[in-house]
Amino acid sequence: MAVVTRETSGVFAIAPTPFDDRGDIDYSSLGRLIDFYERTGVTGLTVLGQLGEAPKLSHTESVSVVSYVLGKTTLPVVVGVSAPGFAPMRSLAQEVMAAGAAGVMVAPPNTLRTDDQIVSYYQGAAAAVGPETPLVLQDYPLSFSVVMTPSVIARIARDIPSCVMLKHEDWPGLDKITTLRHLEANQDMPRLSILCGNGGLFLDFETERGADGAMTGYCFPELLVDVVARTAAGRREDSHDLFDAHLPLLRYEQQPGIGLAVRKYVFKRRGLLASDAQRAPSGVLSEHTRSEVDYLLERLARRDPRVVLVA
Amino acid sequence: MAVVTRETSGVFAIAPTPFDDRGDIDYSSLGRLIDFYERTGVTGLTVLGQLGEAPKLSHTESVSVVSYVLGKTTLPVVVGVSAPGFAPMRSLAQEVMAAGAAGVMVAPPNTLRTDDQIVSYYQGAAAAVGPETPLVLQDYPLSFSVVMTPSVIARIARDIPSCVMLKHEDWPGLDKITTLRHLEANQDMPRLSILCGNGGLFLDFETERGADGAMTGYCFPELLVDVVARTAAGRREDSHDLFDAHLPLLRYEQQPGIGLAVRKYVFKRRGLLASDAQRAPSGVLSEHTRSEVDYLLERLARRDPRVVLVA
Amino acid sequence: MAVVTRETSGVFAIAPTPFDDRGDIDYSSLGRLIDFYERTGVTGLTVLGQLGEAPKLSHTESVSVVSYVLGKTTLPVVVGVSAPGFAPMRSLAQEVMAAGAAGVMVAPPNTLRTDDQIVSYYQGAAAAVGPETPLVLQDYPLSFSVVMTPSVIARIARDIPSCVMLKHEDWPGLDKITTLRHLEANQDMPRLSILCGNGGLFLDFETERGADGAMTGYCFPELLVDVVARTAAGRREDSHDLFDAHLPLLRYEQQPGIGLAVRKYVFKRRGLLASDAQRAPSGVLSEHTRSEVDYLLERLARRDPRVVLVA
Amino acid sequence: MAVVTRETSGVFAIAPTPFDDRGDIDYSSLGRLIDFYERTGVTGLTVLGQLGEAPKLSHTESVSVVSYVLGKTTLPVVVGVSAPGFAPMRSLAQEVMAAGAAGVMVAPPNTLRTDDQIVSYYQGAAAAVGPETPLVLQDYPLSFSVVMTPSVIARIARDIPSCVMLKHEDWPGLDKITTLRHLEANQDMPRLSILCGNGGLFLDFETERGADGAMTGYCFPELLVDVVARTAAGRREDSHDLFDAHLPLLRYEQQPGIGLAVRKYVFKRRGLLASDAQRAPSGVLSEHTRSEVDYLLERLARRDPRVVLVA
Repeated sequence: MAVVTRETSGVFAIAPTPFDDRGDIDYSSLGRLIDFYERTGVTGLTVLGQLGEAPKLSHTESVSVVSYVLGKTTLPVVVGVSAPGFAPMRSLAQEVMAAGAAGVMVAPPNTLRTDDQIVSYYQGAAAAVGPETPLVLQDYPLSFSVVMTPSVIARIARDIPSCVMLKHEDWPGLDKITTLRHLEANQDMPRLSILCGNGGLFLDFETERGADGAMTGYCFPELLVDVVARTAAGRREDSHDLFDAHLPLLRYEQQPGIGLAVRKYVFKRRGLLASDAQRAPSGVLSEHTRSEVDYLLERLARRDPRVVLVA
Repeated sequence: MAVVTRETSGVFAIAPTPFDDRGDIDYSSLGRLIDFYERTGVTGLTVLGQLGEAPKLSHTESVSVVSYVLGKTTLPVVVGVSAPGFAPMRSLAQEVMAAGAAGVMVAPPNTLRTDDQIVSYYQGAAAAVGPETPLVLQDYPLSFSVVMTPSVIARIARDIPSCVMLKHEDWPGLDKITTLRHLEANQDMPRLSILCGNGGLFLDFETERGADGAMTGYCFPELLVDVVARTAAGRREDSHDLFDAHLPLLRYEQQPGIGLAVRKYVFKRRGLLASDAQRAPSGVLSEHTRSEVDYLLERLARRDPRVVLVA
Repeated sequence: MAVVTRETSGVFAIAPTPFDDRGDIDYSSLGRLIDFYERTGVTGLTVLGQLGEAPKLSHTESVSVVSYVLGKTTLPVVVGVSAPGFAPMRSLAQEVMAAGAAGVMVAPPNTLRTDDQIVSYYQGAAAAVGPETPLVLQDYPLSFSVVMTPSVIARIARDIPSCVMLKHEDWPGLDKITTLRHLEANQDMPRLSILCGNGGLFLDFETERGADGAMTGYCFPELLVDVVARTAAGRREDSHDLFDAHLPLLRYEQQPGIGLAVRKYVFKRRGLLASDAQRAPSGVLSEHTRSEVDYLLERLARRDPRVVLVA
Repeated sequence: MAVVTRETSGVFAIAPTPFDDRGDIDYSSLGRLIDFYERTGVTGLTVLGQLGEAPKLSHTESVSVVSYVLGKTTLPVVVGVSAPGFAPMRSLAQEVMAAGAAGVMVAPPNTLRTDDQIVSYYQGAAAAVGPETPLVLQDYPLSFSVVMTPSVIARIARDIPSCVMLKHEDWPGLDKITTLRHLEANQDMPRLSILCGNGGLFLDFETERGADGAMTGYCFPELLVDVVARTAAGRREDSHDLFDAHLPLLRYEQQPGIGLAVRKYVFKRRGLLASDAQRAPSGVLSEHTRSEVDYLLERLARRDPRVVLVA
């Protein structure tokens, strides 16, 4: 089975979990979504992240979603296994790794404050998921209120051999990428694969700073793939031109609280999801908001021909 | 099956979950603990609260602990079903109510801020656990960072008929009890059973203010039972005298972060738990701390003859 | 003296406080900045906000900055008077209103949680600054951790006649504007002037939703003025076209932590500030960051001819 | 002028700021209070802390209170100079040190998260108040949300020679004292004077763990003085007996939100303050609460003959 490594690059699309209007998991939409992701050229998938509404699934449902995805694709799949305690984290991690996942991602609980608390939490998490399981460190202060300095990330990378990837979404975070790459160059820490989140809001510069790619859920993963590829090919202006065309929508989708609703709505308009329903608790998009998204899609379609919508 | 009601009074002891030194659930200690609680004269039990290390149990373990307790006692048992989403909350609530629980307790997620968010969250939770399931509202700002004014609690009590009990542990909270009882007297809200937490730190006055009793886990539930009974009997001085004798230990146990460790250690010294182990992540008591607890027990034994310890 | 009213519209530019490299206030740059703002067509100025580094000024310096600005311009000037207690808030408010300010702005202390606490805090603040002083309510949860629902804002607007303006920077906040305008239309609250912040990140839609304009500090206030004017004139596409051209830079400037540093750097490159120094504690821009800003300016210059820079 | 040093021990009483019922500073009560403190045998005083309502004073008032206190007593006086920026911190520190203060105390802003941020903030603060000014580090996570590990405190102690004292009020914090004393013994950090806060709630054990005394504002400073002295004299049981007699009141006073109101009320009942008024924003004690304090005083009077009250 393919696993994520320190050298992994490209785009891992964070997949939403499709529900039907009664709140049941919609596997047929999920299947369509996976076929779509494969066509876009993403490198891998991430499931059961926050934006996959993981906390709203029962354990049985979580395992079922992962099994379905692993059975459907040969892409490497990272699974979010964050949990309030190590026991449920361990049991989910063991099941999904046995089923063929490529690694697990763990977010820090928002009670962590000091550097030592953070390092020690990840040591516990790594022990819980097992030393053979590739671990993705999720650094997202805006959402988790846990702030990791580059030196803490370096400590984690040194102390925990199974930690091979950083999901980077500190904000501002560009200098953090540069600093981490310097620490690696000076052999102060082993290399980490750095994939960036934040909805892609800074991907144009993150790739230039040395990130290996993106792990996020923007509703046009094609854009993420292209920006990573163009930067890698040295086509700076091309990369920014395309990025800037998407930025108005990307920014709109990145609003906390309604971002996932926007994303599901666009996926529905792209013909991928049968419904844009979320499980409670969730926000719903007002008519006004939907019409703004429609307007942004309309404007985007003039600049990116891949914007093809269903009624 | 007995369920909790708006008139429930007395002491609900919050039971810790005993583990052996390998981290497995120790059902033999759990059985001993339940027998002990019954002897102390508590009115009921609460399991799977935060201090029952609920988030560290897998779903299967949670259900197993509840089944064991319900099979072992005829006391009413409240079960903590807090969860990051309503789907896992619903499935746990349904299982434990079917097994004979007396009600479920729900803590607010720490992202709630406004009055409307709080009310709407509890509406969702009540719908999730089902309209027939007695719901205990947990009001604990120090731990959850969610502040509920008396008027919000009144709105919840009015809007959600199944919400019959308040686990009160706001701090300071004495005037809050008085205010809620006034609102009830003025028919601005239906009566709630009010059981107080905070480790019992203000139970001497809370009972005088109109609370119906305590729901907390102090390592001498006998003290809680006596204070509630003496206040109810109008024996104010007697109640305070006994309370004050326990206050040095009670205060020591109430330290956030190590409170549960102190509690388990005392239960071990009382011969109830085979081990005071907690599941990770957890603190451990230093030798110094244990000797301070021993000293407090020694001093307490001079004033309360029920303090009998094993080596 | 002009004061802000419920009907105020347009753009209030939030002015940074210029320092020289020794950390002293640079009045000559401040003067140049004010002349520049007047040329851009802004409606008013805001000084001593967070981005004016107000907390880093002594009381004497604060009063001196305000006096200088008021002496230099005839534009209405809103002054930030947030303070940890009402006594220093009162004394600053009295001095600046006596000197000719157009109103004062008050941010909520981050300890406020409940609706009642928020309303009661603003009642105290309004009493402190005096019933004749126009009060601007600052709604910025991302920075202050205080969440105000539309109904709380409506209560404040009803209870406090001197509160005439909302500085709106909730995020997401578009539906909030719509809801507030509905409440006003239904006469559930008096009209408030709504000026939007958040660096302008959603100004394209905020103006369409009914906001009266912007109060923010983006380094090209010309853009803010144009978007407000074009939306008001019904030139939707024109408004979005210009907005989208600025969005890459606007988004870059809006990063918490370094936003002010970027803004001062651009003002320096526009020839307005002699130095981009901030007072401690502050971040400094890395060389890498500066070169990214330069690149964004270069790209912007191709689409907006007003981008003229000095070496 | 006496300054605080690494060897300072005993009790620094945190003095409240007396106001009359119109909210003006009541210097006559302040004078009476200082005379009283001198009679109790405290080692020093602390003014303009949070419980001195410092943020509610204007700069002029702050300086005036400090001057009055310094003119009235020969006890060393520590002054709280916490401020949102270094410029006002510097100006207050310079004025009070010139007037004869014994040192300054600085609380961390609640935005600090990482170890590096904390250390760097205190480096900035030490530079602001001047290298000759003894600096007291305030470690109070419950109130400030900033968590300092022993290793961070050790870094601060090593990096900042002027930092000579720790105001310790972490909770739980007993092992922290032990750890810091070990670090000192191993020469991993220079010695700090450790004075404990938290209203004295753990002073019985803190002194046994190696703290040098207390810096807090309990309404019977005599108790603090006695506990420190008895522990120092090896009279363990005596120390705990007296401490336990005060614990019911001490615990009551330590409630966040109303603690200062209780304290001022008791000082009024002790004939020291003419009024227990606080400046807004503040809570007021309900009649019910006052009667509970009266009851606790009554009970305490039976065990400590120094409890003498006025009507």
